[in-house]
Amino acid sequence: MKVVVLVGGVGGARFLLGVKAALGLPAIGAAPPGAAHEVTALVNTGDDVWMHGLRICPDLDTCMYTLGGGIDTDRGWGHAGETWTVKDELAAYGAEPSWFGLGDKDIATHLIRTRMLRAGYPLSDVTAALCDRWQPGVRLLPMSDDRVESHVVVDDPETSGEDTEPGSRDRKALHFQEWWVRYRAEPRAHAIVPVGAEEATPGPGVVEAIAEADAVLIAPSNPVVSVGTILSVPGVREALRKTDAGVVGVSPIIGGKPVRGMADACLRAIGVQTTAEGVGRHYGSRQTSEDGLLDGWLVQTGESAEVPGVAVRAVPLLMSDVDATAKMAHAALELSGVDFD
Amino acid sequence: MKVVVLVGGVGGARFLLGVKAALGLPAIGAAPPGAAHEVTALVNTGDDVWMHGLRICPDLDTCMYTLGGGIDTDRGWGHAGETWTVKDELAAYGAEPSWFGLGDKDIATHLIRTRMLRAGYPLSDVTAALCDRWQPGVRLLPMSDDRVESHVVVDDPETSGEDTEPGSRDRKALHFQEWWVRYRAEPRAHAIVPVGAEEATPGPGVVEAIAEADAVLIAPSNPVVSVGTILSVPGVREALRKTDAGVVGVSPIIGGKPVRGMADACLRAIGVQTTAEGVGRHYGSRQTSEDGLLDGWLVQTGESAEVPGVAVRAVPLLMSDVDATAKMAHAALELSGVDFD
Repeated sequence: MKVVVLVGGVGGARFLLGVKAALGLPAIGAAPPGAAHEVTALVNTGDDVWMHGLRICPDLDTCMYTLGGGIDTDRGWGHAGETWTVKDELAAYGAEPSWFGLGDKDIATHLIRTRMLRAGYPLSDVTAALCDRWQPGVRLLPMSDDRVESHVVVDDPETSGEDTEPGSRDRKALHFQEWWVRYRAEPRAHAIVPVGAEEATPGPGVVEAIAEADAVLIAPSNPVVSVGTILSVPGVREALRKTDAGVVGVSPIIGGKPVRGMADACLRAIGVQTTAEGVGRHYGSRQTSEDGLLDGWLVQTGESAEVPGVAVRAVPLLMSDVDATAKMAHAALELSGVDFD
Repeated sequence: MKVVVLVGGVGGARFLLGVKAALGLPAIGAAPPGAAHEVTALVNTGDDVWMHGLRICPDLDTCMYTLGGGIDTDRGWGHAGETWTVKDELAAYGAEPSWFGLGDKDIATHLIRTRMLRAGYPLSDVTAALCDRWQPGVRLLPMSDDRVESHVVVDDPETSGEDTEPGSRDRKALHFQEWWVRYRAEPRAHAIVPVGAEEATPGPGVVEAIAEADAVLIAPSNPVVSVGTILSVPGVREALRKTDAGVVGVSPIIGGKPVRGMADACLRAIGVQTTAEGVGRHYGSRQTSEDGLLDGWLVQTGESAEVPGVAVRAVPLLMSDVDATAKMAHAALELSGVDFD
């Protein structure tokens, strides 16, 4: 069985652990030779950023480390046993930005990536080379080899105060990472723009993977800056609408709140309610809506959502451990119509 | 008084501590405002190298850290309290080269340098920016902003064994760092070539500093790959021959052996005897030789050297601490003819 999953960072990576386990694959590490099932992750690269001359791909790395057994499981991102010597030393030089958590082990990954990119290798090849070490057991495909970066339009946090009239505030576009990490998504987002998306093409294998899939899942990742950015690459949405596979999404919203992160601040920017129903309707139906994506939509047990043209099912959605996540992934696969027997 | 010193790495940096102290300046850190004396170091950049996409300048950094109080005083190079997480992690990826001591703190320096170089700043500006933090109290001028890299021609260490006929061995040019650090200068050097020197020009301020100097000292650095490489930049030797200042060198050879490092392997490659006299004659006399550099030459107490046209003086040359080094620097300055009173 070929399963394709659209993912962002922490939530997407944890969901992938469950998908692997639901298919009988080891959650962490390589699939055994000749495994009957194959998982391909289409990974958001809109959070990618240049810092200190290094190309950083937070979502790809989070997936790679998580699935390869190297993640800091408490924090959810970065390396287990990470140290911060380079970051402290950069700060001692007064080098900006200083607000980004650039770990020493992580820097080795970024050095290799940056060197390969500068030598002309596309990000997809670089990712494959890095995965040679990590053996995530999932084919990690960047959504695109082209540079696409989410920027967030806000009232300039440097010049705006509470005493400034809203109409007179300067607006500023921040890189998503700056808004998210430095400002903790506090300045209200007026718009979130995947800069470069219009000219981007899907990465090698992305459209093919969707076309050949037996099931497509949308992880409970941020619907705007993770999944939304993947969908912003021309050709991806069309491929999802055309595939013979069932497409099932998992709500990242439980009880009207994001399970993790500040997705509500992103949803507000695009005028979508922070509810399972709101996000389900935002993705829309493949059957009855012109550009919708979903055949099925999983919401949390005890909740309900009405998404016209989409089969909604309620199951436990908290990814508290791999077993719980595997059950949830199993439900998503079942809802997509694949035959587990 | 304006003192110019030609330096390489560890030995040069330690000598500079002594020069500062001899002039009544604090050995470590910035000169007090309005200090009467000024030290300019012309620093070898022929050991510079790209590794893992980072531009590394070992001699500039050794001088900067030593004079700024950040050096590992036991090892003589690299940072005090250095850690090696990035290096270990690069090795876990199998990324080559793995034989170079790339410390975590050091990497911060290299990241800033690389980023500035890629943004178009010349190495001299980058060095000044890095020195803003370290406050070495000495103007550190790269010998050139152009790329000059010492390469060493050897019998290929990968294909040559003791059972290979000397005449049939493959020759190979190694970057100096590879020969020095990886192979510990063991493969016999047939030639040492400062690649790029012919097209290089002296860095900003280099020729002017020599012209305006009251004294020029040649540190007891490697005569071939440190001092020799500086001299290989067209215009430097000419400036040294023209300056009104006295030019005094300090022998790096004591008792027929290099005090530190493997300078003998370099001297053999250019056919110079590993003796104080051999190196003194190699530098030659400004007065009586066509391209000579020296007015004075310091050798170790108890040794003698006959260098035609050069005033030779014997003083204790071991740089065991700053006081001893200051006495030696004082002797060099005196021999150059400057008036200390």
